[in-house]
Amino acid sequence: MNKLLIVGTVAFDAIETPFGKTDKILGGAATFIGLAASFFNIKSAIVSVVGDDFPQEYLDLLKNKGIDISAIEVVQGGKTFFWSGRYHNDLNSRDTLETQLNVLADFQPKVPAAFTDADVVMLGNLHPLVQTSVLDQMTERPKLVVLDTMNFWMDCAWNELMDVIKRVDVITINDEEARQLSGEYSLVKAAAKIHTMGPKYVVIKKGEHGALIFHNKDVFFAPALPLEEVFDPTGAGDTFAGGFSGYIAQSENISFDNMKNAIIYGSNLASFCVEKFGTERMQGLTKAEVVERLREFRSLTQFEIELE
Amino acid sequence: MNKLLIVGTVAFDAIETPFGKTDKILGGAATFIGLAASFFNIKSAIVSVVGDDFPQEYLDLLKNKGIDISAIEVVQGGKTFFWSGRYHNDLNSRDTLETQLNVLADFQPKVPAAFTDADVVMLGNLHPLVQTSVLDQMTERPKLVVLDTMNFWMDCAWNELMDVIKRVDVITINDEEARQLSGEYSLVKAAAKIHTMGPKYVVIKKGEHGALIFHNKDVFFAPALPLEEVFDPTGAGDTFAGGFSGYIAQSENISFDNMKNAIIYGSNLASFCVEKFGTERMQGLTKAEVVERLREFRSLTQFEIELE
Repeated sequence: MNKLLIVGTVAFDAIETPFGKTDKILGGAATFIGLAASFFNIKSAIVSVVGDDFPQEYLDLLKNKGIDISAIEVVQGGKTFFWSGRYHNDLNSRDTLETQLNVLADFQPKVPAAFTDADVVMLGNLHPLVQTSVLDQMTERPKLVVLDTMNFWMDCAWNELMDVIKRVDVITINDEEARQLSGEYSLVKAAAKIHTMGPKYVVIKKGEHGALIFHNKDVFFAPALPLEEVFDPTGAGDTFAGGFSGYIAQSENISFDNMKNAIIYGSNLASFCVEKFGTERMQGLTKAEVVERLREFRSLTQFEIELE
Repeated sequence: MNKLLIVGTVAFDAIETPFGKTDKILGGAATFIGLAASFFNIKSAIVSVVGDDFPQEYLDLLKNKGIDISAIEVVQGGKTFFWSGRYHNDLNSRDTLETQLNVLADFQPKVPAAFTDADVVMLGNLHPLVQTSVLDQMTERPKLVVLDTMNFWMDCAWNELMDVIKRVDVITINDEEARQLSGEYSLVKAAAKIHTMGPKYVVIKKGEHGALIFHNKDVFFAPALPLEEVFDPTGAGDTFAGGFSGYIAQSENISFDNMKNAIIYGSNLASFCVEKFGTERMQGLTKAEVVERLREFRSLTQFEIELE
């Protein structure tokens, strides 16, 4: 089986949407990435850090999904990273109410020996220096390195971000982040500029408006599935990245045509993620449901026009 | 050849975008619909009205595209409908600077005798009573009636709008209009509610985010082509509707599968429309360019995943 190495936060989230609010629940980029990637026939490991306030049941949950959690460091006397946010009525924007870095502030990632030769590395949103440290620990050049990041690091750690972006094959960011990173409003121009920073593949996530993947002059689009109700968008972008990197790891194929399938899988899994609070929907998701939804993606997008 | 009857404005537009501004140029819903539909092997006619200030060269332009203009009434001593607007920097929103109804205020549409048995009727955005009057003049039930409208008529002529919507097969509106018409935020729920008002097919245009067509539980999505630059969005929605109705008229096939192709054609033609001011790009567009762009739509959207 191929190996997927995931780095990112494992955390507590507290979420308010127009449909309700939660107490502290399981969250974090690596959590969502790992749950999504667990749908594929691969070996995966998460590199992360939590405090000793982090419930064993959450760790067990990840472990029971087949994820190697030996590199999730538990800091005794430390507190787990916490984020709380409130979504606006349209669920397209949100305010951060509170961010407590806690144990994340001094996080030194340690890649487990069994994963220093991972086939695919998924660098979830974290400080660019943490992402760099993970790459530095790889003993073999991974077949594919995927990086997710956010505007916060563009504001606070531009040079470090540029250094790590240079070293990755695929970057996944949202449309506003792509605009900020490139200084271009047009996403076509933004992707072209981001290509020059390093990544050969630029994935731009547009939330309910789907996702684009650019590779030089080639472009492919995966829509978001039109849903009756989006309940909680938290983790959708990470779930998308987990679906993307998990599918690539399983298929051992880094052609652009296969990346098309990968963003369809990412979009597919993300469409489940938003149906309930936090990780709830992903925890109970079955393979049959994912396959059934692939059929929906096909009928949503596939057409047959004769070219004259 | 099959017949497409188009009703809508033939008008002057004055447009400001971040890229420049125009004097009074050729515009109007029926103009854009007619130019788009002229790409298909059909007979089309426009029912509209202009003043005697309307240049013969604009009428000749439509005529030279094979459009029957005999039902574009020229009111002697009257002035042509005029709209001017200014787009914001993101080109997704605009302010109307001026609207002069002029000859449109007393417009009584007259369907030409040769088109009272048209196969497809495209009711462009106009007062619902004008749209109704066109339907009332048909001697045979058209195979397909398509209606475009806007929020203005929801605000000012709700009952008249409901009366005409009842009688159409397809409605094309944008996302905000679908929300206003239905009172539902979710586009899936909005489409379901609009179905109950009459139209069996609900097309929701999302501008740069593509278009959806709903038919009961079925849904299909056509993306907008990612463009380096959108120059002027004016007329894109009408061009989309013209591509949709023109393709349906040509193919004589009102199955949902064929409507998928029709919204791809609509999206295709609209992607050209926005590349220059007003109708400029559509005037010079060639069949070869349209076919080439269909290839781009295919590679943008088509994927092959084996379902396990």
